[in-house]
Amino acid sequence: MSVEVLVIGIGSGDPGHLTGEAVAAMRRVDLFLVADKGEVKGDLATLRTELCRTVLGPDGYRLVEVPDPPRGPDAQRDTAAYTAGVRDWHAARAERYAEVVRREVGPDGVVGFLVWGDPAFYDSTLRIVAAVAEHGVELRTTVIPGISSLQLLAARHRLVLNGVGGSVHVTTGRRLLAEYRVDLGDVVVMLDGTLTCARLLGEHPDLEIFWGAQLGLADEALVAGRLADVLDEIRRVRLRLRAERGWVMDTYLLRSGPDPAPRPPG
Amino acid sequence: MSVEVLVIGIGSGDPGHLTGEAVAAMRRVDLFLVADKGEVKGDLATLRTELCRTVLGPDGYRLVEVPDPPRGPDAQRDTAAYTAGVRDWHAARAERYAEVVRREVGPDGVVGFLVWGDPAFYDSTLRIVAAVAEHGVELRTTVIPGISSLQLLAARHRLVLNGVGGSVHVTTGRRLLAEYRVDLGDVVVMLDGTLTCARLLGEHPDLEIFWGAQLGLADEALVAGRLADVLDEIRRVRLRLRAERGWVMDTYLLRSGPDPAPRPPG
Ligand SMILES: C[S@@+](CC[C@H](N)C(=O)[O-])C[C@H]1O[C@@H](n2cnc3c(N)ncnc32)[C@H](O)[C@@H]1O
Ligand SMILES: C[S@@+](CC[C@H](N)C(=O)[O-])C[C@H]1O[C@@H](n2cnc3c(N)ncnc32)[C@H](O)[C@@H]1O
Repeated sequence: MSVEVLVIGIGSGDPGHLTGEAVAAMRRVDLFLVADKGEVKGDLATLRTELCRTVLGPDGYRLVEVPDPPRGPDAQRDTAAYTAGVRDWHAARAERYAEVVRREVGPDGVVGFLVWGDPAFYDSTLRIVAAVAEHGVELRTTVIPGISSLQLLAARHRLVLNGVGGSVHVTTGRRLLAEYRVDLGDVVVMLDGTLTCARLLGEHPDLEIFWGAQLGLADEALVAGRLADVLDEIRRVRLRLRAERGWVMDTYLLRSGPDPAPRPPG
Repeated sequence: MSVEVLVIGIGSGDPGHLTGEAVAAMRRVDLFLVADKGEVKGDLATLRTELCRTVLGPDGYRLVEVPDPPRGPDAQRDTAAYTAGVRDWHAARAERYAEVVRREVGPDGVVGFLVWGDPAFYDSTLRIVAAVAEHGVELRTTVIPGISSLQLLAARHRLVLNGVGGSVHVTTGRRLLAEYRVDLGDVVVMLDGTLTCARLLGEHPDLEIFWGAQLGLADEALVAGRLADVLDEIRRVRLRLRAERGWVMDTYLLRSGPDPAPRPPG
């Protein structure tokens, strides 16, 4: 039995961000698998369902949620027990997906994973699929790239991410303080729940920020300016968005000093 | 007079990589402007024309090439004369675009720029548009993101660009040697005509490379492995592609040491 797996980047919820290739891939899928993260973000699951309905019609698709296995008791991070715990948990999760595929998909079936943004940036789907392949399911994987939230951020602010001939560094809130240096070039931060950049201001008072939240969604919000000047505004907007929708997802670009090249007017 | 400008990311030549939004934007454009770089890559202009024909029909679009002004005499880089020369050249170029827009586009016209990949990565279109706005043309700009070659690279190799929780650094061949450090995380290199990574091997013998050329085109080529092992093969493939098409465009990911997480089988 060899199953075809399509890992499809879907952008951030706006069906207009799907590529023609992504739409064609969605049409070929027999069964969509979805990680059930039991999250506050059930809302995102609704958005994904809406996307399927828009593209495939209300009865045009089959979707199975695969519940994540329970996490073991919390061990200290960076200990051997922690690492082993994480490994076991990943194996248990892969086994659950393998089971669903064996049970629900025929030998020439096509399984689809819908990934927010692009599967290449901070997403675990490809790692899950690799682990499933190691649990006795023979499969062939094709990845269809999608518009990432960092591209929407750039588009909305009409930014070239790299300064002229410069570099772009993409990192997480967790790593930002340890990593930040002016000569990294422009720095895009994802997965930052607490605007960690505020703690760079002491050493880097002239940072510029281009911030965006809920990009591609109806409550999209943008703020840009000197970080020192706009930080409070960003905090206010974040709180408002969270109050309204129950969650907020945001990403931002940091640039040291004012924009060298002007941006076109919007 | 206020002109609407749509800067549209079109991916790498495969019409399937266009988003629905990009197609809709192309349909709204009255006049496409194209930098005539008088390059060897006239071939890319043909690809772009084919894309327009596929999406808009053979008579469905109007395209004007704007020849780049001649460059002044070569001055030493990093001198004041060089910087002034570049500035004058950019101003002259902006003036040419402004002229075409004034002459060819009505007050409520829509001008389109088609950008390979994504306008956010190593592309000068947004800077040109900003400069045109400073040459007395009132305009409003909307950017439509497209699939970048670095995303195609990741998709073809079924890669998550960042290691688990890690960073991604995007840079150019020109900057690679000065910038490379293991703790940058995964490093994507663009605009490298000479496989500069080869010169990192002395200090970093265990580098892994994921390389791709002509991504999205019929002669697409991929190579992956330990850089020390596959460098010769990549060189051979580059030469073959260049011999066949007259040019080669390639990009690659460098990772220090073997892939920590397995990739799914293709
Ligand atoms: C697990 S990562 C997934 C990234 C995704 N694969 C992509 O390419 O956009 C989630 C992070 O992406 C960013 N993000 C995702 N969707 C977003 C959106 N609609 N608006 C702003 N940021 C978003 C946030 O930084 C969030 O913490
Ligand atoms: C001026 S930059 C433009 C990048 C473009 N905006 C993008 O997002 O892909 C040109 C560089 O992009 C990369 N590139 C562009 N098209 C490519 C393709 N089809 N295959 C491989 N690399 C490509 C190469 O590194 C090339 O030197």
